[in-house]
Amino acid sequence: MTDYTAPVTDLHFLLTQVIRADTLWSSLGLHDADVDTTNAILDEAAKLCEQVIAPLNREADEQGCSLVEGQVTTPEGFKEAYEAYCEGGWGALGGDPEFDGMGMPKTLVACIEEMLQGSSMAFGLAPMLTAGACLALNAHGSQALKARYLPKMYSGEWSGAMDLTEPHAGTDLGLIRTKAEPMEGGAYAITGTKIFITWGDHDMAENIVHLVLAKLPDAPDNAKGISMFLVPKFLPNDDDTLGERNAVTCSAIEKKMGIKASATCVMNFDGAKGWLVGEANKGLAAMFTMMNYERLTVGIQAVGAAEASYQRASAYANDRIQGRALTGAAEPNQTADPIIVHPDVRRMLMHMRAFNEASRAFYLYVASHLDIAKYTTDDNLRTQSEGRIALLTPVAKAFMSDMALSATIAGQQVFGGHGFIREWGQEQYVRDVRITQIYEGTNGIQALDLLGRKVIANNGQWLKDYCHEILLFVSGALSIELKVYAAQLAEQTEIALALADELITRSQKNPDVIGDSANDFLHMIGLVSYGYLWLKMAQESHQLLETTHQDQFSADFLNAKQHCCRYFFNRELPRINHLVYCIKAQTDDLMAMPASLF
Amino acid sequence: MTDYTAPVTDLHFLLTQVIRADTLWSSLGLHDADVDTTNAILDEAAKLCEQVIAPLNREADEQGCSLVEGQVTTPEGFKEAYEAYCEGGWGALGGDPEFDGMGMPKTLVACIEEMLQGSSMAFGLAPMLTAGACLALNAHGSQALKARYLPKMYSGEWSGAMDLTEPHAGTDLGLIRTKAEPMEGGAYAITGTKIFITWGDHDMAENIVHLVLAKLPDAPDNAKGISMFLVPKFLPNDDDTLGERNAVTCSAIEKKMGIKASATCVMNFDGAKGWLVGEANKGLAAMFTMMNYERLTVGIQAVGAAEASYQRASAYANDRIQGRALTGAAEPNQTADPIIVHPDVRRMLMHMRAFNEASRAFYLYVASHLDIAKYTTDDNLRTQSEGRIALLTPVAKAFMSDMALSATIAGQQVFGGHGFIREWGQEQYVRDVRITQIYEGTNGIQALDLLGRKVIANNGQWLKDYCHEILLFVSGALSIELKVYAAQLAEQTEIALALADELITRSQKNPDVIGDSANDFLHMIGLVSYGYLWLKMAQESHQLLETTHQDQFSADFLNAKQHCCRYFFNRELPRINHLVYCIKAQTDDLMAMPASLF
Repeated sequence: MTDYTAPVTDLHFLLTQVIRADTLWSSLGLHDADVDTTNAILDEAAKLCEQVIAPLNREADEQGCSLVEGQVTTPEGFKEAYEAYCEGGWGALGGDPEFDGMGMPKTLVACIEEMLQGSSMAFGLAPMLTAGACLALNAHGSQALKARYLPKMYSGEWSGAMDLTEPHAGTDLGLIRTKAEPMEGGAYAITGTKIFITWGDHDMAENIVHLVLAKLPDAPDNAKGISMFLVPKFLPNDDDTLGERNAVTCSAIEKKMGIKASATCVMNFDGAKGWLVGEANKGLAAMFTMMNYERLTVGIQAVGAAEASYQRASAYANDRIQGRALTGAAEPNQTADPIIVHPDVRRMLMHMRAFNEASRAFYLYVASHLDIAKYTTDDNLRTQSEGRIALLTPVAKAFMSDMALSATIAGQQVFGGHGFIREWGQEQYVRDVRITQIYEGTNGIQALDLLGRKVIANNGQWLKDYCHEILLFVSGALSIELKVYAAQLAEQTEIALALADELITRSQKNPDVIGDSANDFLHMIGLVSYGYLWLKMAQESHQLLETTHQDQFSADFLNAKQHCCRYFFNRELPRINHLVYCIKAQTDDLMAMPASLF
Repeated sequence: MTDYTAPVTDLHFLLTQVIRADTLWSSLGLHDADVDTTNAILDEAAKLCEQVIAPLNREADEQGCSLVEGQVTTPEGFKEAYEAYCEGGWGALGGDPEFDGMGMPKTLVACIEEMLQGSSMAFGLAPMLTAGACLALNAHGSQALKARYLPKMYSGEWSGAMDLTEPHAGTDLGLIRTKAEPMEGGAYAITGTKIFITWGDHDMAENIVHLVLAKLPDAPDNAKGISMFLVPKFLPNDDDTLGERNAVTCSAIEKKMGIKASATCVMNFDGAKGWLVGEANKGLAAMFTMMNYERLTVGIQAVGAAEASYQRASAYANDRIQGRALTGAAEPNQTADPIIVHPDVRRMLMHMRAFNEASRAFYLYVASHLDIAKYTTDDNLRTQSEGRIALLTPVAKAFMSDMALSATIAGQQVFGGHGFIREWGQEQYVRDVRITQIYEGTNGIQALDLLGRKVIANNGQWLKDYCHEILLFVSGALSIELKVYAAQLAEQTEIALALADELITRSQKNPDVIGDSANDFLHMIGLVSYGYLWLKMAQESHQLLETTHQDQFSADFLNAKQHCCRYFFNRELPRINHLVYCIKAQTDDLMAMPASLF
């Protein structure tokens, strides 16, 4: 069984037909990026992911990482794969050109991220954390810090980590106890213990740059008293060579359900030397630059793994001979039919595909707004894109990961008993994807962020802007078949808007209304968004099918888009009705039972 | 954190108030079983499960089993726990008194099964397979085989295994290649390889009795040519001591996602000596005696684990201090509030509880029909109960396991990051429960069995009988609040009946309609069943609350039933609407896409 095939054709379809990347990029003055360059880059990345990284994924999960005398050793092959990643310059792709980055748009970088994560989530976490740390450092660090650290981090020689959580402080970072004491020369001595630090230590890069949340001596003892510090594993000399070992050490690595090949570290800071990044007491905001990036990428991770699971499941369903079609033997010359003759097997595959492909379109949609927000010179456009990003980041993180778990469970189920055996690889995707619903803010927190901060606190404006875009699209020119679905989507979009208004009013009287409806609301917005993107994909593929002599995409590829769109509108979008029902019900059944009765 | 507390109070409530076990048992002439005896038995079993088995569960998962020179070694403590299980006589509880069984009703045995599985699914599989093998042997074996094997199996000295699957033949057992050649003296030489054999070898019992499916030399080469054979690991001497080692060996054990502490064996039969059980070529039917038993128990397993997950999740939610209630600080004197103040955390807990408790009621309901079918002298009653068992066994297996996976995922999510760390125990329940959707016939197969064989092939009669029971109950005397829910349930029950009729008609034209709707249909029947049982539980607890001076159950316990019932009807039962929508839609979107496009 092939380990993984990067979904280059689908990415190419989305970039050229749905996101219309060429127009987008040139309108933003990104003249280094065009579809031809893009294709070459996607193909190169695909080679690395398919040939170097993906083949390591299964065995690396069995080996895991080990910790010996404070040093983490990675599974066989990871070091070489990381070298190949660095040599290809992949870490610099989205980086700031001022510090040796390549300045490529997020819409392109996101495609590479999916491939990387699809080939191995555990491995992919290392570049992912580095990229996030670079973003936060670039946005908030001093020029001196940036000049010293960013080029080394873009090249991958030094990797990044994000040190937030403490045993008693996860969601509620105001409770952290790590201290930062001023030292001579403007640096700080950082002391405390952080847990759940992904790739907090490893042997793939020569240095590791920690972005650490800590409290200054006179800081308020809550979320407003948190500052961010850069703490390298080795203190760089003035000539950028590595100097003294800093007092930051890995004291344990966690035994986890999945992503076992990545080291999740307990990090001890024992008066480690660090530098303030951004303003004192504004560390949480600075960290959110990184968190928001990571949240989108967590969604992308989940899709990557769910895509890999789908590829194997569809191959297995075509391969595995067992039983007969309900309508009579499909392959009378064989002892049995391939299990893909069964509607129930196809149900699982269609479910996976309908969500995987819409998720891919969705992260590229969000990425396109990240590009606009970053590069446009039009203030209105920027403001609008910033609103879209704020609104949709929690949806991207939570809905994509929820749907990816559901997809990987289906992808395991297709394999029957073999799906439970580690050797076959399908169960690993379930175990790996499961973390994407938890880290970088649990999906419950994402739902509260969406409904509470992004919809209600904003009086629904960002949601209105987004929904109006959808309503405008569905009222436009569409093929006859799609008009039915467009009407269905318009109705659901209007309902979502009305519900948001209702929740804004109700939450004023009772703030618990937010927590009560947040999860359902997030899933509702997710389904509406995927409906929107399925319509776009179906419309574009329909037009290409009508075009004579187009040879970019095969008729099979385009027809499959039509089938999946139909399936999504017939069977998945209507799930929204249950969510709406629950939100409207206004029952007190979650809060009525005394806590002691649980 | 406590490992596990057996749900003795809830079981007692269900037995006395909902199943009305005393009346049931005495009407069936089961005079050895009464509620007083029952309580003592439940308490004893709880002790074994809580104190001996549950504490092994976490570490045993880490250790797993090992295979050295064809002999499986179990994790530390399993041997001693198995001894304690045997010494307590637990294996004999439901056994046939003619062969030293205790002849206790299934309604009691099922309670013990849940506790056993809740304390450790991996361990619980050994007694579970033995009990199933005993049933099949008792139903189909010769008097000589039964007299020789059953007493040893009831005592646990010898354990049982079920050898069906081969690498190329899982769902489709007609494809098996294992051969049985007649030997002198009426025995057979069995040759072939079986995979996925749970507890196919181990060091807890002195002998292992395999029930093996194989083909006689002249047998038809399909499902009608399968016979069942009893193949012991050691051939018993005439004085019941162990004789020669039989030619059945474990050549490998699988590395799995979960239930790692149980050995899943590849078994090689190399001319092993075996005896025919039941008639030649009727092996599949004989094996189904065992399969049907196992299918209910698989559902019970899933509930057991989901209950354990709930207990820890609710404790954690009351314990874990993080953030503040949306309505303002609930515990202003602490640095933060316990996370149970959040509606979204309660949503996950209520979801778990609504399904766990209804599942428990459901398996006892099915078990009560197993008792009636076995012990009643009334032919009509027996026929009716047999119909109920046939109809509901696939629902018990698939719906209980699907809902248990959903529950354990929620139970993991409550723990945030700690839920992903193996040490905390929550992720193990997800990995363990996942197998219950797969083995003993995947849930897709259960759905086909329900809709195709139990509803359509039966022209809907068994479903009608069941639904009429529900409709009769909901039209009866109920408290005012429950009347609303009763009306809701009556409507859904009528819809289910109408849909069954529609599917009977439509499937005549197109058999794929069965596969298309099977999964949705099974979930619909599951939700209707759980609605029925929630109403029963709520009605009984309501009446007890109205009763002055009853001291069997605390007001807290009874009030919680009311809350959970409300939650179920407000938020979970309405999911049925989506299922109905999909079944009615009559789209061809699962079968329309050519297989090559997947």
